[in-house]
Amino acid sequence: MIPKLQVALDVTTEAEALDSARTLAPVVDVLEAGTLICFSEGMSVVRSLRAQHPEKPLVVDMKLADAGKDLGEMAFKAGGSLLTVICAAPLATMESALNVARAHNGDIQIELFGEWTFEQAQEWRKLGISQAIYHRGRDAQAAGQTWHQEDLDWLQRMCDLGFRMSVTGGITPELLPTFRHLPIDTFIAGRALLTAPDPRKAAMDFKETLSSLWRE
Amino acid sequence: MIPKLQVALDVTTEAEALDSARTLAPVVDVLEAGTLICFSEGMSVVRSLRAQHPEKPLVVDMKLADAGKDLGEMAFKAGGSLLTVICAAPLATMESALNVARAHNGDIQIELFGEWTFEQAQEWRKLGISQAIYHRGRDAQAAGQTWHQEDLDWLQRMCDLGFRMSVTGGITPELLPTFRHLPIDTFIAGRALLTAPDPRKAAMDFKETLSSLWRE
Repeated sequence: MIPKLQVALDVTTEAEALDSARTLAPVVDVLEAGTLICFSEGMSVVRSLRAQHPEKPLVVDMKLADAGKDLGEMAFKAGGSLLTVICAAPLATMESALNVARAHNGDIQIELFGEWTFEQAQEWRKLGISQAIYHRGRDAQAAGQTWHQEDLDWLQRMCDLGFRMSVTGGITPELLPTFRHLPIDTFIAGRALLTAPDPRKAAMDFKETLSSLWRE
Repeated sequence: MIPKLQVALDVTTEAEALDSARTLAPVVDVLEAGTLICFSEGMSVVRSLRAQHPEKPLVVDMKLADAGKDLGEMAFKAGGSLLTVICAAPLATMESALNVARAHNGDIQIELFGEWTFEQAQEWRKLGISQAIYHRGRDAQAAGQTWHQEDLDWLQRMCDLGFRMSVTGGITPELLPTFRHLPIDTFIAGRALLTAPDPRKAAMDFKETLSSLWRE
C-alpha cells in the first residue's frame, strides 16, 4: 500500500486555511485542520473546509485530553471525519471520543507525544482503537531532535500491534526513504507544503516519491 | 491565604460565555475560557472576555501539547493572562510557552492529567514553572472516580515542591473541607456555578465557604 499524504493546515486564519486547502486538495489525500487554526478560528474553519471539500477526509487536530464526548460531538458535527486524542488522555476519554466517532462514521487517532508506553498502546488496541500518530513535535524539532533508529523501532512495534500509523514532524520527501521498510498509513506535512514556492508542485513531488518508494 | 475561586466557562457559544462572565465576575477571582469554548469559537471569545473584563485574571485553557510559542502568542495576544499546558508536553514546549507568557507578564499552568511523575514535576520547577492544576477529569468523574487520599497526598507533595496549586473536577462547596489542610491557591468550578439556579449566589456560597474554612 502506498502511504497517503495529509496536509496539516498550520495557519492562523480561516482565509489562509481555505486558500491552502483549495490549492492542495486536488493532490493530497487528507486535509487537517491543525491545532493552531482550530484554536484561532474555532469550529467555523472545520465547517468551511467541509463545505468546500464535501468528500475529503478531514482530521480535526484537537489533541483532546478530556471531555471526549463534548469535544468529539463538536468536531464531528462541524464536519470532521477524524479526531486526534492525546496519548496522555485517560482511557475513559479515549473511549467516549471513540464512541462519538463511530456514531458519526468517523474515527479517532491517538497522538503519541511525550511519555507513553507499549503497555498503554496495548490497552488502546483493546478499546478498539486502530489509528495513531507518531509525532516529532515542533518544539522537539526546534530543539534539534531528529529521527532516530529508536523512532523507527517504535513505529514498527506499533504497526505490529495493528495500528495504522501516521507520521509527522518535519517530514520532507528527502526523509521518506528512512521509513521505506515500514507500512506507514499516512505522512503528514505542514510547512514543507504550505511554505513551498509552489505548494501544489511540492505535494506532487511528495506523492511521486511515496509511489516510487512504496510501490516496488 | 484564602484560596481563590475560578469559574471555568465550559459553554459552547461566545454569547453564553460573555453572559456567564458578566453574572459571575463581580464574585469570582479568575475567569477561564474553557477548552470547549476555545475550540468552539476560537480566540474571538478570549478577546471579547478581555474587552468585557479588562482587569480580571483570565485563563486560556488550551492544554497545549506542542507549538508553545505560536499557541502562547495567540492566547496572550488575545488577552489571556494565564495559559494551560498539558503535563505530557515536552519540556521544550513548556519552556517556549513560559517564555512567551513572561514576555506578556503572564504565566503558564501545567495541567496534571493521566500519567506523570514526581520526577517530572521536579524538572518543571527547574524550568521555573510555579503553577499547576490538579485535575480530576470529566470523563474520570463520569466513570465514577472520586477524590481519594492519594489525590490529597499528591497535592501536598506538589505544594511542598513550591507549586501554587489549582484544583478542579466536580468541585462543590460540600467537597471543600476535604482540602482544608492544604494551601490550595485556586479552586476551579464549572457546572457547579454555571448550572446553579442562581449562579451568582452559588459563587457567593463558594466564596463564603472558602473564607470560613481557610481563615481560621
